[in-house]
Amino acid sequence: MSNIAAAIITIGDELLIGQVIDTNSAWIARHLNEQGIDVLRRVAVGDSRDAIVNALNEELAQASLVIITGGLGPTADDITKPLLNEYFGGKMVMDKRVLAHVKNIFSRRNRPFLERNMKQAEVPDVCTTLFNEMGTAPGMWFEKDDKVIVSLPGVPFEMAHIMEREVLPRLEKRFFSDAILHRSIITAGEGESFVAEKLQDMEAALPAHIKLAYLPGAGMVKLRLTGRAADAQMLDKELQAWQMEFAGRLESIVVSLEDIPMEHILGKWLTKNHKTIGLAESCTGGNISHHLTQINGASNYFNGSIVCYQEEIKVKLLGVKLETINNFGVVSEEVVTEMAKGALMALESDYAFAITGWLSAVEGEQVPVGTIWMAVCDKDKIRTKVFHFIYNREMNKVMATSMGMLMIWKFINGKL
Amino acid sequence: MSNIAAAIITIGDELLIGQVIDTNSAWIARHLNEQGIDVLRRVAVGDSRDAIVNALNEELAQASLVIITGGLGPTADDITKPLLNEYFGGKMVMDKRVLAHVKNIFSRRNRPFLERNMKQAEVPDVCTTLFNEMGTAPGMWFEKDDKVIVSLPGVPFEMAHIMEREVLPRLEKRFFSDAILHRSIITAGEGESFVAEKLQDMEAALPAHIKLAYLPGAGMVKLRLTGRAADAQMLDKELQAWQMEFAGRLESIVVSLEDIPMEHILGKWLTKNHKTIGLAESCTGGNISHHLTQINGASNYFNGSIVCYQEEIKVKLLGVKLETINNFGVVSEEVVTEMAKGALMALESDYAFAITGWLSAVEGEQVPVGTIWMAVCDKDKIRTKVFHFIYNREMNKVMATSMGMLMIWKFINGKL
Repeated sequence: MSNIAAAIITIGDELLIGQVIDTNSAWIARHLNEQGIDVLRRVAVGDSRDAIVNALNEELAQASLVIITGGLGPTADDITKPLLNEYFGGKMVMDKRVLAHVKNIFSRRNRPFLERNMKQAEVPDVCTTLFNEMGTAPGMWFEKDDKVIVSLPGVPFEMAHIMEREVLPRLEKRFFSDAILHRSIITAGEGESFVAEKLQDMEAALPAHIKLAYLPGAGMVKLRLTGRAADAQMLDKELQAWQMEFAGRLESIVVSLEDIPMEHILGKWLTKNHKTIGLAESCTGGNISHHLTQINGASNYFNGSIVCYQEEIKVKLLGVKLETINNFGVVSEEVVTEMAKGALMALESDYAFAITGWLSAVEGEQVPVGTIWMAVCDKDKIRTKVFHFIYNREMNKVMATSMGMLMIWKFINGKL
Repeated sequence: MSNIAAAIITIGDELLIGQVIDTNSAWIARHLNEQGIDVLRRVAVGDSRDAIVNALNEELAQASLVIITGGLGPTADDITKPLLNEYFGGKMVMDKRVLAHVKNIFSRRNRPFLERNMKQAEVPDVCTTLFNEMGTAPGMWFEKDDKVIVSLPGVPFEMAHIMEREVLPRLEKRFFSDAILHRSIITAGEGESFVAEKLQDMEAALPAHIKLAYLPGAGMVKLRLTGRAADAQMLDKELQAWQMEFAGRLESIVVSLEDIPMEHILGKWLTKNHKTIGLAESCTGGNISHHLTQINGASNYFNGSIVCYQEEIKVKLLGVKLETINNFGVVSEEVVTEMAKGALMALESDYAFAITGWLSAVEGEQVPVGTIWMAVCDKDKIRTKVFHFIYNREMNKVMATSMGMLMIWKFINGKL
């Protein structure tokens, strides 16, 4: 019942100097995992011959599958392709399909096709070329001693495209493995310790092939049940039964039994209930609106947001009274109330949410940094809430965004 | 002249199933790097005893400093603390300062203090406790065979806080090293190959202790010069001279000589020139506004954004004519022109930027997916531009956001 073991190697000096955040590893791990392939380790190394060869040797000693990303670009610091060619004892040959594609990309972009771009179309003759519709660097599939080594470009959407089109279907065929299935429970309003304490006895009763993980986020804790078994259908039923049992115990704090972000949970609810929402955002600066519009079909329920970073705009577009601002301050229950009511009118929506606060220090301001007022309303009622976040500007914005969406969820579900 | 070599180990099953993106490694790498500490490798392993011990043994064989994050929480899947205690041959003792702090956090949050939370305040007696003001899990500093091992919680802002307050100052004292300095050049509008070709001869002429890296982003390429030398002051002058020489060669495509994101470049320009900007966002759904407000002090130049996800809102708040939408379609040069002019009026700003497009497929729509119209204007003139992005919804939004900010930059700098 053992799974295929994989390792991910990401290549690039930029990863070791912290220039870029590695999103590729998480993407690859998630997709391998869904196919029943375990990722044992993820390793990041620099653009150095020795470091790459060492990592490859080390990971191949443990894993049956190694996925490499990065190091395939046209500039001098990208050395992976010739190195892999040598490692697997091949010689570089021109791939005509890739060459035509690369030339086509350059002409569409009105860019001169340079000598060094020719190299982009060369691949080792000992690999299977993985065509890259989204960019110039092709992926490569090598096999050696019954192990598979895949090399992909580091640009995230190019990597994802080749993985989906070329790599995942080939892996499915190449490796057999047990079914691995997940079930999630999203909870809100209680901390990780509280939830864990509440489930302690049930967790201990889980059979060996089902595991529970706690994944805390801003104001929320996600529970993830992972099961492995030969029979996918039976496993699914079993997992579902456990999910229901856990959810039953947690009842009042359960937000969703689907593993989707809060913006998606809100979108499903609003779509199903044929309701619309509008926002008035001051301190979050459009971030809640950005989250809500990440969902395909958001135009069915999201009317818009008035990002009002100036007092004048709050007055002009939301009808907040200048007097209210002067009397109570721009970060106050009174102002956020008027903002929400103004947004409901201006954006002609069934629900409106408003937020105003200080994310970072403001000179001469009496209200302490991190104070955030929120309001949510429909035509009949309004609820307000104040938060005091203690982090830096960026993190305060993230927290305000999460807590804001959670407040909307509570309001529309009659829990506020 | 060799630097201190470090490794970063991140612990957590959630990293291997792709549940979370590892931002900690990049943060740590960047800060170590600035202190002249080279990161050789970054490794992610699961919540497994063997995997953690193996990783620790492997990395300690190469590195003088190992930074570990994650695996310190109160739930059953967090096993790092007892493991490190055993690894370094200590015994667990209660840290009274930490205990008082943890109890205080629970009472402030009105949460019951549970048995398992007591353990949060225990530390091995062979480490120096690194106090965690931001959360319940303290960091730990171990020394063994002249090497340093630091263990930190995995929550990003807790990790960052302990690093800044406790770890970085101690490292400075503990290790001596060469100065390592960086200089950057941000370019826009040409690809990585083009830039590399243009600089080829100059790159070849760089002295051995200065390196050039190309870091491509959406529509932009960042050049990063990295130098190492004993004398920081001399190195700085030398790097600056090279930066000027490279920038001189690239002249027309240079956006900034500072390594800051486009929203920050725009913010500095607008602050310096005492100008304001307002937005009308349809397809980007508030994301450009969110970016502009990431900068502390954005309220000095950013008036707001009207996120108009419905035709009615475009008409009502921006004065777009219904006739224009009906005649030309909502994704058209005509509509984006009226949106920009409307935003300039409604938000009373010196500049306005507007955007409308299809990020993903819309049933019955004639205009192809990925078509995005943008406009930027002041009271005297307006410029429009159409883009055709070929990615998925999420990536099209990222590209539109980057290209939109770049278009604003070009307009205000008279390059459009």
